[in-house]
Amino acid sequence: MEADAISNATPTEEMNGPGNLMDFLDEPCPDMGTYEDFHTIDWLREKSRDTDRHRKITNKSKESIWEFIKSLLDAWSGWVVMLLIGLLSGTLAGVIDLAVDWMTDLKEGVCLSAFYYSHEQCCWTSNETTFDDRDKCPQWQKWSELMTGYNEGAGAYLLNYFLYVMWALSFSLMAVSLVRVFAPYACGSGIPEIKTILSGFIIRGYLGKWTLLIKTVTLVLAVSSGLSLGKEGPLVHVACCCGNLFCSLFSKYSKNEGKRREVLSAAAAAGVSVAFGAPIGGVLFSLEEVSYYFPLKTLWRSFFAALVAAFTLRSINPFGNNRLVLFYVEYHTPWYMAELVPFILLGVFGGLWGTLFIRANIAWCRRRKTTQLGKYPVLEVIAVTAITAVLAFPNPYTRRSTSQLISELFNDCGALESSQLCDYYNSPNMTRPVDDIPDRPAGPGVYTALWQLALALVFKIVITIFTFGMKIPSGLFIPSMAVGAIAGRIVGIAVEQMAYHHHDWIIFKNWCRPGADCVTPGLYAMVGAAACLGGVTRMTVSLVVIMFELTGGLEYIVPLMAAAVTSKWVADAFNKEGIYEAHIRLNGYPYLDQDEFTHRTLATDVMRPRRADPPLAVLTQDGTTVEDVETLIKDTDYNGFPVVVSRESERLIGFVQRRDLTLAIKTARQKQDGVVSNSVVYFTEDAPQLPPDCPQPLKLRRILNLSPFTVTDHTPMETVVDIFRKLGLRQCLVTRSGRLLGIITKKDVLRHMAQMTNQDPESIMFN
Amino acid sequence: MEADAISNATPTEEMNGPGNLMDFLDEPCPDMGTYEDFHTIDWLREKSRDTDRHRKITNKSKESIWEFIKSLLDAWSGWVVMLLIGLLSGTLAGVIDLAVDWMTDLKEGVCLSAFYYSHEQCCWTSNETTFDDRDKCPQWQKWSELMTGYNEGAGAYLLNYFLYVMWALSFSLMAVSLVRVFAPYACGSGIPEIKTILSGFIIRGYLGKWTLLIKTVTLVLAVSSGLSLGKEGPLVHVACCCGNLFCSLFSKYSKNEGKRREVLSAAAAAGVSVAFGAPIGGVLFSLEEVSYYFPLKTLWRSFFAALVAAFTLRSINPFGNNRLVLFYVEYHTPWYMAELVPFILLGVFGGLWGTLFIRANIAWCRRRKTTQLGKYPVLEVIAVTAITAVLAFPNPYTRRSTSQLISELFNDCGALESSQLCDYYNSPNMTRPVDDIPDRPAGPGVYTALWQLALALVFKIVITIFTFGMKIPSGLFIPSMAVGAIAGRIVGIAVEQMAYHHHDWIIFKNWCRPGADCVTPGLYAMVGAAACLGGVTRMTVSLVVIMFELTGGLEYIVPLMAAAVTSKWVADAFNKEGIYEAHIRLNGYPYLDQDEFTHRTLATDVMRPRRADPPLAVLTQDGTTVEDVETLIKDTDYNGFPVVVSRESERLIGFVQRRDLTLAIKTARQKQDGVVSNSVVYFTEDAPQLPPDCPQPLKLRRILNLSPFTVTDHTPMETVVDIFRKLGLRQCLVTRSGRLLGIITKKDVLRHMAQMTNQDPESIMFN
Repeated sequence: MEADAISNATPTEEMNGPGNLMDFLDEPCPDMGTYEDFHTIDWLREKSRDTDRHRKITNKSKESIWEFIKSLLDAWSGWVVMLLIGLLSGTLAGVIDLAVDWMTDLKEGVCLSAFYYSHEQCCWTSNETTFDDRDKCPQWQKWSELMTGYNEGAGAYLLNYFLYVMWALSFSLMAVSLVRVFAPYACGSGIPEIKTILSGFIIRGYLGKWTLLIKTVTLVLAVSSGLSLGKEGPLVHVACCCGNLFCSLFSKYSKNEGKRREVLSAAAAAGVSVAFGAPIGGVLFSLEEVSYYFPLKTLWRSFFAALVAAFTLRSINPFGNNRLVLFYVEYHTPWYMAELVPFILLGVFGGLWGTLFIRANIAWCRRRKTTQLGKYPVLEVIAVTAITAVLAFPNPYTRRSTSQLISELFNDCGALESSQLCDYYNSPNMTRPVDDIPDRPAGPGVYTALWQLALALVFKIVITIFTFGMKIPSGLFIPSMAVGAIAGRIVGIAVEQMAYHHHDWIIFKNWCRPGADCVTPGLYAMVGAAACLGGVTRMTVSLVVIMFELTGGLEYIVPLMAAAVTSKWVADAFNKEGIYEAHIRLNGYPYLDQDEFTHRTLATDVMRPRRADPPLAVLTQDGTTVEDVETLIKDTDYNGFPVVVSRESERLIGFVQRRDLTLAIKTARQKQDGVVSNSVVYFTEDAPQLPPDCPQPLKLRRILNLSPFTVTDHTPMETVVDIFRKLGLRQCLVTRSGRLLGIITKKDVLRHMAQMTNQDPESIMFN
Repeated sequence: MEADAISNATPTEEMNGPGNLMDFLDEPCPDMGTYEDFHTIDWLREKSRDTDRHRKITNKSKESIWEFIKSLLDAWSGWVVMLLIGLLSGTLAGVIDLAVDWMTDLKEGVCLSAFYYSHEQCCWTSNETTFDDRDKCPQWQKWSELMTGYNEGAGAYLLNYFLYVMWALSFSLMAVSLVRVFAPYACGSGIPEIKTILSGFIIRGYLGKWTLLIKTVTLVLAVSSGLSLGKEGPLVHVACCCGNLFCSLFSKYSKNEGKRREVLSAAAAAGVSVAFGAPIGGVLFSLEEVSYYFPLKTLWRSFFAALVAAFTLRSINPFGNNRLVLFYVEYHTPWYMAELVPFILLGVFGGLWGTLFIRANIAWCRRRKTTQLGKYPVLEVIAVTAITAVLAFPNPYTRRSTSQLISELFNDCGALESSQLCDYYNSPNMTRPVDDIPDRPAGPGVYTALWQLALALVFKIVITIFTFGMKIPSGLFIPSMAVGAIAGRIVGIAVEQMAYHHHDWIIFKNWCRPGADCVTPGLYAMVGAAACLGGVTRMTVSLVVIMFELTGGLEYIVPLMAAAVTSKWVADAFNKEGIYEAHIRLNGYPYLDQDEFTHRTLATDVMRPRRADPPLAVLTQDGTTVEDVETLIKDTDYNGFPVVVSRESERLIGFVQRRDLTLAIKTARQKQDGVVSNSVVYFTEDAPQLPPDCPQPLKLRRILNLSPFTVTDHTPMETVVDIFRKLGLRQCLVTRSGRLLGIITKKDVLRHMAQMTNQDPESIMFN
């Protein structure tokens, strides 16, 4: 009987798929179809809505020239958004680079010829600089020199020390205050949140204009303060804010959360592209680490955005060397098979460092969340800055900015190099190019440098754990790379000296004759940096691509790959989670990761209502009054309600969104004559002819989704998880032979997964 | 009533999901769960089966140490397979490279010191070679010299010409005969078929041992014959054959078509890795161009396989230069903003070439399929080889191997270079490095070279159209790149000469002062090659990565990206299909591509049975006899049958595979007492107690999939297509409120899509 009631409707007569809502309502209300804050989006529905919009435009485009042009503009709007994102994020990155350079040097001194010059720029423009000592020129004065006229002696040293710490403290105080007051979302690296947003979660304001502005400013301050943090993660956040900003220019993107996420994925690629000057690495980073859905179309767009961003940055030329990249190495010495052993050891070190860092950092962040500590974020930042500055100044390798340190560690020693790390006993033949200098015995400077580097290593390891996660913008790439580069350089020098002093050992005999250039310590630093970054983030392919875009060291793909893969294996052996996933879990974001679900449970074990629960809140296709529906909406907080033929048969016919229902009733009550509390709501094709004294019926079939997603109660949860992940569902109904049994939401899936891995299912906070 | 009959079964009592088949049957038959040739696999089912297997092993591993070790081995078997694939494909690629070098040179002459030396190796080992003329040494003798003692004059030329053509003909005859006789699947590039296989299609023998062997041998012959084809595509096929070979070592991969495809994706990456010496480009190629599902796990594994393969190849060192890559460039001259104009023009050329090539090649291949031409493949190969060889010999740029040609075109002219292309009027200052030689006026040699290059360009364009698709192994990368490199070099020289002779033009004024090195013609060749390859294959990211891994030209990412993106835009404006998709469509493979489906149709329009058709072949959960089932199996050729409560209610309870049904009945008839033709088949939880004189019932609930995938009849087709694509379904049932209305198979979806784009739906051949 009920079956007949449904089959009366001829299916092709009208289309009531989820996407066709708009056709019938003609956008009566701008809110229709949007989501609330901290809610999950329904990817299938968004996609369907976009296809409808597209179809409409295509149909219209045949009507007139103007509509045709509009349809062309619509088709190209994606590329336009990419262009704008590239331009703005490239510009911002250039400005940030310049500002950081200037402010970092401001901690040491000032340029007399123009106060807005950094140390390097100051001495460039000076004519009195000799080639040998590019860093020294009379225009650049340290604070002690400027204020007292002295540059030597304990007094000058202490004065410089004091001012260094003071500048650092004022920068970080300013940063944390700005974040606190104007944009609390501007803190941290932002990558865990962006990952969550890209997976289909709504956090309003996280990518807003204020966040963009404040994050840009505070990022400069935080990096300049000398804290152990980098600008790479935050730049991804900044680029995503740009993406979100430009989305609002086009209704195609601003009104569709699914399409918006395509743009954000590409923006993330542009962010990494300018952070490192590595456009392809950026695309891969977005693919491997950040994005959730990454169709080929997004790949191509990301590629374009990354290209434009890199190009813009290059035009600004913040490093003044016409190169895109931060660290450029010039050596092309081949590496030898036997060197794979130390490279793999560095990989193991990177994996161990990653494990240690993630455990310690998460433990500390959990403590911050749960204890009094979290209540004094400003004090925490000030304290950490003070400790960092006080400990960093005496050691030349921690005093300078971390990227300068990494750059020096990556470089091979030329014959003319004046740095301490290059204090080798040179053979008389001095004019050979970098690639061809034979291994030399280390001088005393190298040994001093080794000690200082070892201290710097310990310092960086400890302080980074406490720095990442504070309430200021903080990236993790540069500190991790610094740890690895220091360790790598130490190992590199050790191997080099061993090879020099023990040419006769079996392992060296074959590949290292006396007078040959067989070990490049800079390469070890590079490999170490890759290993440590890999251990923390668990990237592999994108990591290697970034490393070789960064350094131009095409010959070293195999060592880099070996270290990255080893580091991932070692770190995964302890814990599968990278730092970003760990922070997502710590914060309880509803993120459905790609790990395989292997437990033997069925949909029926996960669906609600459970055995003890009251029955599911459903609507019937007819017979419910407007008042009943309103009561149901008021009494529950579900996002939607299944519609069944009747309460007895419980046969499912569709699903209706709470928002749509509320809006439709409100609109009907205001605009439609005769719709009162007593009116009967019909979800059927036709409402029956009622006697004239009855109140007008309310027909709501147009807001009914007639193709809700269903699984049977026997479906294994692994399949359900797979479906949720791949199709990006928000909820799924559970039926048996068409009888509605229950509902599974994304939150239920996440809770169940947490339960299965013995975590607290209540830690997942939002739906 | 029927509803009650179903709800008797308590859902958690036993699990009959698709994956649990094995538990109950205990693998009674090795064929259970496999697929037939030219059929589509069900990804969800394969995944489910693998999870089950994994779960079983994990449970067992707690029982004993031995089981624990076995579970560890199982967990690492993926990496072991990758290692083996890398080793074998690297070795094969090395062997192929060496053999091709030798046989290509064999067409010209022979090495007297050892006949198995190629020209280059021959002169390396010779002491009499001067540095200036590395190619000339007395040990290497042209055929004319060896046979008549003369190397000059018309007679010697004609003799060499004749022998060149003869060698080419004999190589290609051997190649085509071997393919015809032993392994018909060894022809072509193989990438369209591998794409189809990776999307979930079964083509038995396509990746078999014979194909591996024959393809390797014939690839060497085909490339050596001088035909306009490359070894890159076929190497991907060879690597995939290796992958398939090693899959058979581990039941984890050999028995699961889904897992097997993960391995094949990685193998494709290894193939490109060794084809170009570009490991990261290989991974991206697999991701962007070949693979269908590419989870992060596969990304990491591919990365490892590509690494091992590249490393193995480097150890074999076929190019004798300790470099991985085919074409290594040494220049690092910066490029100028204004040069983007010619680069983008080259991109446009690439896009046009791509469009032209695809149209012409597909038209020719269609003609081959439909006319008499297809019946004489040997003759066709011989004819094309003859034409190629006859036309190629007189022109020095087509006589040499295509990769040598590309290599020369990519190279910048040093001061000492002796080739015709480098015949510039040199300024007196001769000792500057390559990067620093100012622009010079071209000498007569350059102009001759330009003419010859122009002829070579026309020749390559025409002959490649006829070559690709013949019944021998043939890759498309190298010919496409050659076309682009020739065009690029011509443009490059033109721009260079313009810049030299017209320093005062506005466009040159800013970036090209007299005496500066402002234009690098080799870079134009590189950009042109990328543009043409991009136009044909529509790759973007992987293309740029391959190009810069190939050449080490890190500085040139932006020009390469600009050309690749332009080329893609231009080519896409004409037709969205790349050459591989075009060949897939030509051959009618059931490939569901990633293009968006935007038509406004519903599931009900696509499902079978159509209005005029007989009703759907279904089974009922009880009341059917074994004989009835056997008749149904005999009378239809469907892959499976939905099971409903009763024919009247048509309420769906599950789906049963044809294979499983046939096997189960066969086994039961043989082994189970009392099962005869009259036995009633029960798909319910419990069979009713029958009177003793009735035949034994046959309970088949264990082979029933209780969670078949369903959509409602109102579901828009765009959603259905999305579900098929993302979940990799084989079929999907259409219901309305639990009533079974019809079925949609992958073939139905593909037919419908073809119909919607006005193609012949019957061109899709297989299911």
